[in-house]
Amino acid sequence: MGRLTVRRSVLRLTPDGGTRSRPDTLVAEEPLEIRVGGKPLSVTMRTPGHDVELAHGFLLTEGVIGTGDDVAVARYCNSVDDEGRNTYNVLDVDLAPGVAPPDASLERNFYTTSSCGVCGKASLDAVRLKTRHSPAADPLTLDREVLVSLPDRLREHQKVFGSTGGLHAAGLFRADGSLIVAREDVGRHNAVDKVLGHVLMNGGVPATGTVLMVSGRASFELVQKAVMAGVPALTAVSAPSSLAVELAEESGMTLVGFLRGETGNVYTGAERIRV
Amino acid sequence: MGRLTVRRSVLRLTPDGGTRSRPDTLVAEEPLEIRVGGKPLSVTMRTPGHDVELAHGFLLTEGVIGTGDDVAVARYCNSVDDEGRNTYNVLDVDLAPGVAPPDASLERNFYTTSSCGVCGKASLDAVRLKTRHSPAADPLTLDREVLVSLPDRLREHQKVFGSTGGLHAAGLFRADGSLIVAREDVGRHNAVDKVLGHVLMNGGVPATGTVLMVSGRASFELVQKAVMAGVPALTAVSAPSSLAVELAEESGMTLVGFLRGETGNVYTGAERIRV
Repeated sequence: MGRLTVRRSVLRLTPDGGTRSRPDTLVAEEPLEIRVGGKPLSVTMRTPGHDVELAHGFLLTEGVIGTGDDVAVARYCNSVDDEGRNTYNVLDVDLAPGVAPPDASLERNFYTTSSCGVCGKASLDAVRLKTRHSPAADPLTLDREVLVSLPDRLREHQKVFGSTGGLHAAGLFRADGSLIVAREDVGRHNAVDKVLGHVLMNGGVPATGTVLMVSGRASFELVQKAVMAGVPALTAVSAPSSLAVELAEESGMTLVGFLRGETGNVYTGAERIRV
Repeated sequence: MGRLTVRRSVLRLTPDGGTRSRPDTLVAEEPLEIRVGGKPLSVTMRTPGHDVELAHGFLLTEGVIGTGDDVAVARYCNSVDDEGRNTYNVLDVDLAPGVAPPDASLERNFYTTSSCGVCGKASLDAVRLKTRHSPAADPLTLDREVLVSLPDRLREHQKVFGSTGGLHAAGLFRADGSLIVAREDVGRHNAVDKVLGHVLMNGGVPATGTVLMVSGRASFELVQKAVMAGVPALTAVSAPSSLAVELAEESGMTLVGFLRGETGNVYTGAERIRV
């Protein structure tokens, strides 16, 4: 679709105090509406491309589907813009017979239960109730050398970041450090959904024996997504939040933050790391 | 409430190839449910604190309210956890008489219109239809020296980032570089909502003559929030997206990205910058 990046002229403030006009490459951002059975479910701002994977990953990590077979068909619907061109911004998913459609409050399922208002503990409980996989028993072990090499390995596959500097990246790796799949997106959640959707569509969920590496911070929602796909380890370049660490601990997941150079902080699941 | 950070022991991978156990400070992340007139409207993962400001900013930038007077009262409701303690995670807002309640599809308003499916142009149109302010005529001028000093000025006020490395920051400045308000949050949108909510509650919307500085990227949604508050300039440490630049241009807003050291890229509204 050729919409991953957009060229544009900018005024550069130069180090000598002057300015000059020069071309710049921007990362594309457009809305994607995901419909299930014809009903709008979610709209996310994303970088166009790998939208079918994104939809699979989103539905997986929200607990709507568990395998690729749960989706009967996913296709762009005929939404057109003012000039009658297909926008490729609406994806219609039909679930396979017998798969329950998502309920209307989908997006709030992981945050709240009616029993106790809304609190961190309720969010943890909701993930435990929804997930079909538990990383706790996953026999993954990770050599320290492989672990500290992951940021560089991910960066090698960040094609668009190099030209725009504007993207989050996520990559799924095997224990030997080899890459399964990497994706970039303006939205951190979307990059992870695209990775996990790809894995799901290739029969790879639960993603036992793998490590998910993300370019930014590790939030509750990213740990949630990893749990839902059965990924036993999540590593991040930046800091995790308190609730992310709590969920990783409760799920038996290995969580590493501040992974830079030869260093990093292991928050949970240190027994999987071979020093 | 003392929940801005959480202490925890981590296993540090040290540069010499060894490990050592040490305490670490995590940024707190918990869900906040915003209710309007008793009805749940939105749940966001946020860093606790300044929740009333967050709710005001969210309602302002989604087009529900236009002034602080549009809110009759905002208070924590009596949601309790398993042990009967108030979670302080549910905020109940009552609108003033005559203020129309948000419609159910609030969160999708900025992304889609029924006329053309969902596309970038529809998202731009939706902001234009909703906003009560236009930065286009704002007479703000910014000296280059002030502009390039903003990242450091914002960093001075990032209290929690220093201890956790895990937070996004947003700050609103005057043209002379003096700070109006700065806020931090695990969520980039929340940091901006807290800033704009504070300004609204103090009668400062439309925020004419101000610059909003954010610590990360400039997405469509951040430009949208600035437009809705009448802020004439948005500056970011990292890259803007294509749609962010389009919205800034259409709104007459000055947008600067990659603001680092003595350099930066001016994407739109360069006439406001005095070199």
